[in-house]
Formats: sequence, structure tokens, C-alpha cells
Amino acid sequence: MRVVVPFAAEDPKTRLSSVLDEAERSAFARVMLTDVIKALTATGHDPEVLATAPMDLDVPVVVDDRSLTPAVNAYLTDTTRPCAIVMADLPLVTPTALKGLFRAPGDIVIAPGRGGGTNAIVTRHPEFRVDYHGTSYLDHLAIAYRLGATVSEVDSHRLATDIDERSDLAEILVLGDARTRDWLADHGFELTVTDGRVTVTRP
Amino acid sequence: MRVVVPFAAEDPKTRLSSVLDEAERSAFARVMLTDVIKALTATGHDPEVLATAPMDLDVPVVVDDRSLTPAVNAYLTDTTRPCAIVMADLPLVTPTALKGLFRAPGDIVIAPGRGGGTNAIVTRHPEFRVDYHGTSYLDHLAIAYRLGATVSEVDSHRLATDIDERSDLAEILVLGDARTRDWLADHGFELTVTDGRVTVTRP
Repeated sequence: MRVVVPFAAEDPKTRLSSVLDEAERSAFARVMLTDVIKALTATGHDPEVLATAPMDLDVPVVVDDRSLTPAVNAYLTDTTRPCAIVMADLPLVTPTALKGLFRAPGDIVIAPGRGGGTNAIVTRHPEFRVDYHGTSYLDHLAIAYRLGATVSEVDSHRLATDIDERSDLAEILVLGDARTRDWLADHGFELTVTDGRVTVTRP
Repeated sequence: MRVVVPFAAEDPKTRLSSVLDEAERSAFARVMLTDVIKALTATGHDPEVLATAPMDLDVPVVVDDRSLTPAVNAYLTDTTRPCAIVMADLPLVTPTALKGLFRAPGDIVIAPGRGGGTNAIVTRHPEFRVDYHGTSYLDHLAIAYRLGATVSEVDSHRLATDIDERSDLAEILVLGDARTRDWLADHGFELTVTDGRVTVTRP
């Protein structure tokens, strides 16, 4: 199976602007990507990164400067092998969670993200194409249905937790055990509980 | 294994006040409880409800008007059998997800909730007691560590998704397939996507 991690090299994670400046957001996105690649490699796969610009990484980089959906679909068109597409902002993923994704049955396997997204998807159907706009989990179900493809869902909090907003950072401080957690701690982030809600502060 | 679902009968789900009035919040909490009980029963267990006031349900009700932590700990003190404590606001749970909880190894099994909570916990250690305040997932790890108890974590988005706030309702509309989803649809809730964020509206 081919395994690819899309990565937007420029101005990543803009919804974290209130707590991280632009250089920090770039560094943070890179350390999350590194954790995802490490977990994927530990499953025995050889991940590639599909980046919007050239990057210096220990794994192969395919450059495509288009937005997520057309870039991934071009990648899918170029191969006849089954493919897994795993988002780069999943710093809680473990090899165990990823193995659950890879071994799930079906033409299409989806790990939904919180908020209706598609955080990881496996396609074993040559005609399947992605559409990451909006509630892509529902859109991908509909695309699979139109192809007559079988679908299974992977139920994993670690795969469901993509990091977009400040409140998401708390998940990393609670459950993370990889480099991204250390990066946040090194940059002063701490858990705070207010009115029963958990968030992060940066004193 | 004893299986118990704590339920606060009075003024539940106050953080949903912006979209549901008090009577609706009561009804909504009840329908979530019904879905959780149904999923638990489908696993072959006989769940009990630990309620703050008498309730008319198809399963046994233990009444304890204290707050969550002392009520659960009294329940744990009264038994020598392994116990599972499953929160009532988990309308996405499926029998499959719950079976993963029940069969996980360890003296203590924790299904963390988003935000550092403990959405479900199994204790097979007679001295283990709960502490649901704050980031209870971390507190429960510490309590288990002090007892020398072994711990395992259950990685499930369906178990991790407790329903407290408006944005949580979107998860039900995306992934739910039980009565709670129908209740929200019947009460006019719809998915909305704005700036890449998924939420619900009630036109």
C-alpha cells in the first residue's frame, strides 16, 4: 500500500494565530508531520509526503503546489496500488491506531475527524477520488456509495483528533507522548481547567 | 461485571442553554441516556443507572443525590465485582466500541474523553476510587499508579465524544445513527459549515 501525507508548506495552521506566531506555526506543523511520519514508519510502511513546495525530509517528497483535493486526486490517478492518505496534523496517532486503519476491511476505509472531516482514508478502489471541502466524511461516504464501493469506519480518538484550534492543543498535552507534546511544553503551554473546560495557556 | 451509568436528573447539560431550553435539555439528556443503555444492553450486560433522583426506566435505578464523584465511589465501595462506569452523554457509542472497553486488559481501563475527561472506566481493582473533577483522565492515571494498578487506554472517538456544547452536537449529526440523532433532526438542528468549521444551526 502507498501511504501519503499531504502537507501545506506555506502559512500552515492559521487558526492557531492567537497563540503561535507565523514562524512558530511553521515549526509546529513540521514537528506534527515528523510525529506522523515516525508512527507510519513504525507500522512497516514507507510514507511519502505530498507537499506544496520542496522540503528536506528523510522520506520521499512529491511536490504539487495545488490545493489538497486536486493534489491528492492527481496522486491517486498516478497509481494503481491501494493508497492511504493520512493528514499531517494528527500528532496523537500511534502505530497501533494506524494498523487499525490499514487492516480494516472494505474498498474504502475512513477515519473520521472531529467536525466531519476525513483524517485518514484508505482506498482500494481505482476510481475513488477525494473531496476534502466541508464535511468530507459525509461526502466521501456519498462518493463511495455512488461507486458501489464497500466502506468501513475506523473508530479512533487519536485519528479523529486533528489540530486546528487552541482547544485542540489541550488534547496533545493530555494524551500526547511524542515530539509535538515536548514542543508545546518547551514553548510554555500548560493545561488549564476553567468552568469544567480544559484549554491551554501560555503564561 | 457491573455496569453503571451515572445520570444527573436535574437541570442537565446547562452548557447547551444557548440552543435548548430547560425542558428540551432534560428530554435531550434522557434520549442520550436511552441510547447508551441500549448499546450497553446489546453487549450482553445488564446496566444500572445511578441517578440523583428516582426515574422510571426499563433498567434498575440506584438513587444517590450526591454529586458524581462521591456517588460513584459509594457504588464502588458497595461491591466486590469489577465495575464499568459509562457516562450518559455518549450518544455515539456502539456495542462494538463498548466491547472494546470491556475486553481491554488491565486493572483499570480508561476511555478518555475529549478535553481530558474520563468518559468510561472499568475497574477490576477493589481499592480504586474515582475523581471526576478537572482533567480526570490524568487524575485517574495517577490514582492507578499510586495503587500499583495496571492501566490500559481505549482509543475510541465514539467513546471520547461526550456532548456538552453546541459544537459537540455536530458530531451527532455526522456520525450518529441512534435516537439522539433523530431527536436533534426532529428539533430542527442542521449541520452548517462556516470557514471550514462544522457546527449546527436551528433555523
